[in-house]
Amino acid sequence: MSIHQNNDAMKKWQDVAKKELKNRSVESLAITSPEGIVYQPLYTAADLKKHDYTPSLPGTAPYTRGPRATMYRGRPWTIRQYAGFSSARESNKFYKQNLSEGQKGLSVAFDLPTHRGYDSDHPMAEADVGKAGVAIDSVEDMKVLFDGIPLDRMSVSMTMSGAVLPILACYIVAAEEQGVAKHQLRGTMQNDILKEYLVRNTFIYPPKPSMRIVAQILAYTSKHLPLFNGISISGYHMQEAGADSVTELAYTLANGLEYINSALDAGLAIDDFAPRLSFFFGIGMNFFMEIAKLRAARKLWYELIQPFKPKNPKSSLLRMHCQTSGYSLTAQEPYNNIIRTTIEAMAGVLGGTQSLHTNAFDEAIALPTPFSAKLARNTQLILQHETDICHTIDPLAGSYAVESLTAEVYAKARALIEEVTAEGGMMQGMDSGMIKAKIEEASAAKQARLDSKEDKLIGVNHYVHGHDIKSEKNLNILKVNLEKIKREQFESLQRVKASRDQDLVTKSLYEIEQTAQDPKKNLVPPVINAIRHRATIGECSFALEKVFGRFEPSLTAVSSVYFKTYSDKQELEEVSARVNSLSDTLGRRPRILLVKLGQDGHDRGIKVVATGLSDLGFDVDMGTLFARPKEAAKQALENDCHIIGVSSQAGGHLTLVADLKKHLDSMGGSHIRMIAGGVIPEDDYEELTKLGCQAIFGPGTSLVTCAHTLLDILGNTTKPSSSQVSTAN
Amino acid sequence: MSIHQNNDAMKKWQDVAKKELKNRSVESLAITSPEGIVYQPLYTAADLKKHDYTPSLPGTAPYTRGPRATMYRGRPWTIRQYAGFSSARESNKFYKQNLSEGQKGLSVAFDLPTHRGYDSDHPMAEADVGKAGVAIDSVEDMKVLFDGIPLDRMSVSMTMSGAVLPILACYIVAAEEQGVAKHQLRGTMQNDILKEYLVRNTFIYPPKPSMRIVAQILAYTSKHLPLFNGISISGYHMQEAGADSVTELAYTLANGLEYINSALDAGLAIDDFAPRLSFFFGIGMNFFMEIAKLRAARKLWYELIQPFKPKNPKSSLLRMHCQTSGYSLTAQEPYNNIIRTTIEAMAGVLGGTQSLHTNAFDEAIALPTPFSAKLARNTQLILQHETDICHTIDPLAGSYAVESLTAEVYAKARALIEEVTAEGGMMQGMDSGMIKAKIEEASAAKQARLDSKEDKLIGVNHYVHGHDIKSEKNLNILKVNLEKIKREQFESLQRVKASRDQDLVTKSLYEIEQTAQDPKKNLVPPVINAIRHRATIGECSFALEKVFGRFEPSLTAVSSVYFKTYSDKQELEEVSARVNSLSDTLGRRPRILLVKLGQDGHDRGIKVVATGLSDLGFDVDMGTLFARPKEAAKQALENDCHIIGVSSQAGGHLTLVADLKKHLDSMGGSHIRMIAGGVIPEDDYEELTKLGCQAIFGPGTSLVTCAHTLLDILGNTTKPSSSQVSTAN
Repeated sequence: MSIHQNNDAMKKWQDVAKKELKNRSVESLAITSPEGIVYQPLYTAADLKKHDYTPSLPGTAPYTRGPRATMYRGRPWTIRQYAGFSSARESNKFYKQNLSEGQKGLSVAFDLPTHRGYDSDHPMAEADVGKAGVAIDSVEDMKVLFDGIPLDRMSVSMTMSGAVLPILACYIVAAEEQGVAKHQLRGTMQNDILKEYLVRNTFIYPPKPSMRIVAQILAYTSKHLPLFNGISISGYHMQEAGADSVTELAYTLANGLEYINSALDAGLAIDDFAPRLSFFFGIGMNFFMEIAKLRAARKLWYELIQPFKPKNPKSSLLRMHCQTSGYSLTAQEPYNNIIRTTIEAMAGVLGGTQSLHTNAFDEAIALPTPFSAKLARNTQLILQHETDICHTIDPLAGSYAVESLTAEVYAKARALIEEVTAEGGMMQGMDSGMIKAKIEEASAAKQARLDSKEDKLIGVNHYVHGHDIKSEKNLNILKVNLEKIKREQFESLQRVKASRDQDLVTKSLYEIEQTAQDPKKNLVPPVINAIRHRATIGECSFALEKVFGRFEPSLTAVSSVYFKTYSDKQELEEVSARVNSLSDTLGRRPRILLVKLGQDGHDRGIKVVATGLSDLGFDVDMGTLFARPKEAAKQALENDCHIIGVSSQAGGHLTLVADLKKHLDSMGGSHIRMIAGGVIPEDDYEELTKLGCQAIFGPGTSLVTCAHTLLDILGNTTKPSSSQVSTAN
Repeated sequence: MSIHQNNDAMKKWQDVAKKELKNRSVESLAITSPEGIVYQPLYTAADLKKHDYTPSLPGTAPYTRGPRATMYRGRPWTIRQYAGFSSARESNKFYKQNLSEGQKGLSVAFDLPTHRGYDSDHPMAEADVGKAGVAIDSVEDMKVLFDGIPLDRMSVSMTMSGAVLPILACYIVAAEEQGVAKHQLRGTMQNDILKEYLVRNTFIYPPKPSMRIVAQILAYTSKHLPLFNGISISGYHMQEAGADSVTELAYTLANGLEYINSALDAGLAIDDFAPRLSFFFGIGMNFFMEIAKLRAARKLWYELIQPFKPKNPKSSLLRMHCQTSGYSLTAQEPYNNIIRTTIEAMAGVLGGTQSLHTNAFDEAIALPTPFSAKLARNTQLILQHETDICHTIDPLAGSYAVESLTAEVYAKARALIEEVTAEGGMMQGMDSGMIKAKIEEASAAKQARLDSKEDKLIGVNHYVHGHDIKSEKNLNILKVNLEKIKREQFESLQRVKASRDQDLVTKSLYEIEQTAQDPKKNLVPPVINAIRHRATIGECSFALEKVFGRFEPSLTAVSSVYFKTYSDKQELEEVSARVNSLSDTLGRRPRILLVKLGQDGHDRGIKVVATGLSDLGFDVDMGTLFARPKEAAKQALENDCHIIGVSSQAGGHLTLVADLKKHLDSMGGSHIRMIAGGVIPEDDYEELTKLGCQAIFGPGTSLVTCAHTLLDILGNTTKPSSSQVSTAN
């Protein structure tokens, strides 16, 4: 409804509303979302008419009310918690515990070297083995991972898009050696490479061969693993990177279209693979917008699929996994995250998701503990068993507000997809950088809204309390014994290599290389063969790399969005004035090099910091993704930077900062100030300080605060000029 | 919609659903609620037609969508946390802290002696001073309570229905001495005596004079405190006592009608007081049912008021406070309660409450700590500031499911009110015991559903984990230093009594007595006068008691509901068999006396235990409410009981059990086994065991388990017969 609508009841409502508002207008009650959608203060049946709302039923086209007719009344969503704990043995133990406590499916988190196709003993893997997930080097590790877990009965989701071929092969061979045939395997391989280039960065090869791999996995799994989802097209990481709900939805479905085209190009028919496509969305704190997104997603996908003329109704049916937002969690007052995750989980459920991961409340600080993981799972168990939320299907259908928002999200996402299509599709849009820029602008704008307190976060920028609260300090943080894991992985690799038939391995790796050279040949069978002969993940990946090359990404940041969005210009001017004054002293702008080190590809934070500091007057350089500490030190010296800032989200900071310091010192860069930021447990602050970090910025730090600290650091010391440095050498 | 409906779309849905269900019928998907309302698996627009659904708008009759036109877009609900910590000084400190952390109004919890009109130095108050709320003995305590809190700007809710006259007087005089006039005071006095007789038991006088007090407070506040709600008609305690949502709603509104009649009888006109009536509901875990209840409440109340021909629209408008359910919280895995409270808070908000209390997660174990209280408050702050839930008014309006449930709750509650009215109203229904019995039957049935695991509670009867989880054990429990508080209250009372003009006090107390004898005279002015002269709460209450008498309640329990509802008859037979076998040995049934001691009137638990044990074959006696330990010991001996069970919900157990043991021993009853149950912190288990308790049952214990334990206790000892006892004496 428009609030201007003029029937009697509406007139009366407006009269009463005006009285209540005293000096404010009724129009002032409308709120515009980051998506550009206006939340009307009041929705009525007239709004449904405006949107040409046509009721539909679940399990029937266009599936707005759900992909299955009986939805949660038939069976509830699958409680599927994403987890991997350092070693295969620890993870296996954890999975078994979870399954006994009500979890229904597995979802494997791999460590970053595995994602990027490095074995645990590769020099590039040094800081990241067993961090943020489980290290898998060969099928032997995979067998330990699933020990005692019957793969014919357990649905397994694997978050893997980089080293997807050898990981799929390990899963198939591990099952085979358990006595389980391929056609019995149920689960999902993420296998969504496009969003890696966009936002997540755990790719190995350039886009073109990567797309070939995606299509060939789809072809293979459609034929040989009929119960397995060969792809999970993911919007989650876009939301985590700062995208609003409409952007997340549109780009995800647009990626879906790319994959379809790619599979059709590879000679598949739409009904061969479309029924096994699956999707993955994030659920943030905008409860109704997120519900609308999930409902709109199904309708929109249904319509997008029709031009491909599917005969199987299942080809048009969007099934999804959802995960509550990691981005919405705060390191400050972490127990608040239990509340946030509950709200988000409810949105996922009321939107009709098929499976759900609920984040643990301590994930903004460290990996979950058994306690926090259980509590996260309990969120779902309580929704399923203690409430009436599953008693009826799509309970919000017909709501004037929810149906209106559904229609608006649908229309806006549709328009955005059409825009992408008009420009040649997602691959094209990524090449031009336009799509990345759109997400990064949204991210910088969000940061500015938070920093200027326009968007509120309880305990972070709103109702922040200084007083000490014992129970919060008592938080048990999970510690990973990195050296032990590395040693175990090295030993396991040695055992595998000692006992295998090296000739067979060499031959099978060569076969991979040969197959890679012919785009028509499917890569899955030779990789399965090599894995069966105990080739490692790293060896298989390298065989492909020899043909495809490795993709070298650059790091860049958008500009001016932060400054423009930040609402308190006065505060910005204060920082700029200080920067200018320091520049006068220095003879040039203060220069900072921001780096990501190791295999940690989470670059939302570093990009936002780059945009913000640059808008505030700093001279900002960015390192390359996956840089080694030595390269970063070199770059800082070459660019004559005053400060080097390390952004860490994957737990490798202690190793990497120590290494960076060593190289800075040996290259004559000990005058360069070091700072760190990101997801860093407070327990590590002391050691980082000892290593020479002069400031550590946790999540939730305002960039204005950050800038002031940097200025303090630079203003309080005699700053050596570049010439002085060379003298000192 | 009926699932049998036969249009094309519905037919198609049914076909798909049948296929998905394999051998189950579509009809089997419907779920019947404890209210007798059927949740259809699927709701469509046809359901709205069936219910003659007429859309309405907020702020206009019948107010289904909200009492105000702008609802939370105009201003959000008031975050009003109910709290009182032992002494006035501690509570004052806590309130100030809360207000600085985002709370918007105060809600005072009083200790039980204050509720029941006893000063802290009264012998009946011994175990309960400063437990479960603040002890207020005179206006001096009230002044400390509100020290530094400007009463002209702070809305204050007071949960008081027993000693309501002196407490209201203290509030008015404390404000007066702060320089704040009566007409500036904003807030609410609970003043709902009917539900005290029904479920909560903090009454002082018999019903008739109590109803006079209610009406006279309404008359006084309507005239002199125009911004103050003179009553908060409460369903919350009915829900806590086990009532389903329809019963809670119907009986609450029926109580409202009693108060209206009572005020009209006292000579008031409807528009004099109806605009200041307010309501108070509980919010349990049935999300959609609770939303429906709040929406139906407004429509129903509007219609119930029309026969009184109000001219002021505000007279027909139901405004409410809500509180998340204490009953739904568990002592096991207490952090799960954060999740439960979040879900319930959302239901309150989506139902359109005007103010909200969210329970702290540790309240099933002890009083909240500053940490848990903050987290509870943050639940509301996060909903208000971090989500889009307040962006639009009554966002679920139009939902086929929510509007259908609203219509059904409305119809069922209306029918129940008509039934009560036909039988002469609530006062009549309470006299006959029918209404109490209906709530207690619901409560016993609920317990049987939980004990037989038909209703699930995560961590209690579903997914119960034995393993130790450190963070849960680390829970900080609030400890109240009872002796210190008592000493302070004694001293404060002495100071007040030493410095006042005793003649004026005696005279003003006599004036109260005189006024009490003439039902036409309003009691508020003489009580204000006495309080102003520093008469105590106990003295004022006693002056009234001399004329009105004290109400002596009995404790009784319903029978057979537990046995009938418990789904696993096999388990029940096993217990009965053991009871029968023990009876053969004993020569009679095992006999247990269940007692409530001190001023703790929470009798849901004891009644459920009585019903259950009696259904399982025990011979069950019940003590009187508010019994002294000596009386309980005497009754156990006179009835020759094998066991005495103490039910404790208000924290007085250590004092009371020690006293009970002393009396049992001195009367020759040391052979009588003692057990305890209720809300008892684990830290107290050791001391209770030392005092002689052979078993302690926490919340969530199945009565079947409880019965087995009692049988073990009795079977493992030589049981002295009554004659042996007298020999021993």
